[in-house]
Amino acid sequence: MAASRVRQMYLSAKNAAALDTELMSSGGFSLDQLMELAGLSCAQAVYKSYPPESKRSVLVIAGPGNNGGDGLVAARHLKLFGYSPTVYYPKRPNRDIYNRLYTQLTNLKVSFTDDIDTAITEADQILDAIFGFSFTPPIRDPFVHVIGLLESSKKPVVSIDIPSSWDVDSGPPNAGEIGAGFVPNVLVSLTAPKPAARFFKGRHFLGGRFISKELADKRGFSLPEYPGVDQVVELPTENEKL
Amino acid sequence: MAASRVRQMYLSAKNAAALDTELMSSGGFSLDQLMELAGLSCAQAVYKSYPPESKRSVLVIAGPGNNGGDGLVAARHLKLFGYSPTVYYPKRPNRDIYNRLYTQLTNLKVSFTDDIDTAITEADQILDAIFGFSFTPPIRDPFVHVIGLLESSKKPVVSIDIPSSWDVDSGPPNAGEIGAGFVPNVLVSLTAPKPAARFFKGRHFLGGRFISKELADKRGFSLPEYPGVDQVVELPTENEKL
Repeated sequence: MAASRVRQMYLSAKNAAALDTELMSSGGFSLDQLMELAGLSCAQAVYKSYPPESKRSVLVIAGPGNNGGDGLVAARHLKLFGYSPTVYYPKRPNRDIYNRLYTQLTNLKVSFTDDIDTAITEADQILDAIFGFSFTPPIRDPFVHVIGLLESSKKPVVSIDIPSSWDVDSGPPNAGEIGAGFVPNVLVSLTAPKPAARFFKGRHFLGGRFISKELADKRGFSLPEYPGVDQVVELPTENEKL
Repeated sequence: MAASRVRQMYLSAKNAAALDTELMSSGGFSLDQLMELAGLSCAQAVYKSYPPESKRSVLVIAGPGNNGGDGLVAARHLKLFGYSPTVYYPKRPNRDIYNRLYTQLTNLKVSFTDDIDTAITEADQILDAIFGFSFTPPIRDPFVHVIGLLESSKKPVVSIDIPSSWDVDSGPPNAGEIGAGFVPNVLVSLTAPKPAARFFKGRHFLGGRFISKELADKRGFSLPEYPGVDQVVELPTENEKL
């Protein structure tokens, strides 16, 4: 019984996509709203894990899709929270929402970099916003190179939704594959943890506080209680569940 | 000098409208984003003033414009924070964003009411989201009746941006005019206090955490430090400033 309850917490790649579609159709949400709340929760998870007094500079690595968009929103809130974010955003689809998020950041004097090697070396910490629940292999450059740097870097990493390069449903890559050695310190699952989170042993937060208990029930996952007005709630680690 | 510094804090109706226009043009923000962050800050101010353990039911009175939209967003977050919100929303312009905010609330089982007299009697507290910085008299029905109820009600009221019926720039109505007796307990100014806030003596919060210090300087108002990840900061009351 306990194992089955734990299994119900996870939202597969297919079901996460279906939930997103539902939220933006009959749910009445716009992508702007969902991304704002998701990105804000990621920024709060960074703050709770590495407050600006301890790790001030943060490199946000943004991928080409909505996970990257969440990262751009998070970068804006991190700037307002007192961090010094730098953004690496090598693939920028010409979509209105991404263009606007870019404009918001440049207006806040957030700097963008093309030199990922130097940026990782100089950062106190990293926010991995490369791939999310719609990730399917293969990884393409420049992200093959970036994942390699994350594997060898000793910097603290917070990953949004999944550790980038991990399979959403089956978890970490096999030994020898790209990303097999990438283990972030903190994971922020959005709406509900994906199955890959079963293999994650670090600090684990849940964000994306916009789902009703009824909708979660209907979709077959459970919702923990968020504390107060927080947009994230810390989940028990896999070790604590055992 | 002190008086002039205080005066600089206020954003006139005209300048607030110009700032809004700038945020949504060269600023790159969408109305969805700004309203989400504004409404979230209002919900946080309600939580800080009247936590759900003390005042659980909250009547949100939403006007026909963006102040009402902020109230609808706040109602959604209040529901997720553990309150039981009820919404009175008598004038509903057929705009996509308001329609979607309405859908989001009905999906969360937030109830709407047409009976304002009963709703005010039954509520533990009230969120006044009727009029904001674009308010110009005269007040029309049903809001003449609603303001009259707020004047005579002893329920705690949190007002968004201005106490509804007050003139944005010159403050409370004259004796004998509609709203002359309406004094909310809490005010949540958005982006910057409007000149009417000079006449407000209760708890005063600032919300709408999306402005850079550079933009505030350019627009001639000051930005206080927000604590941690909060979307609101409490301001000194007029009495404390003296």
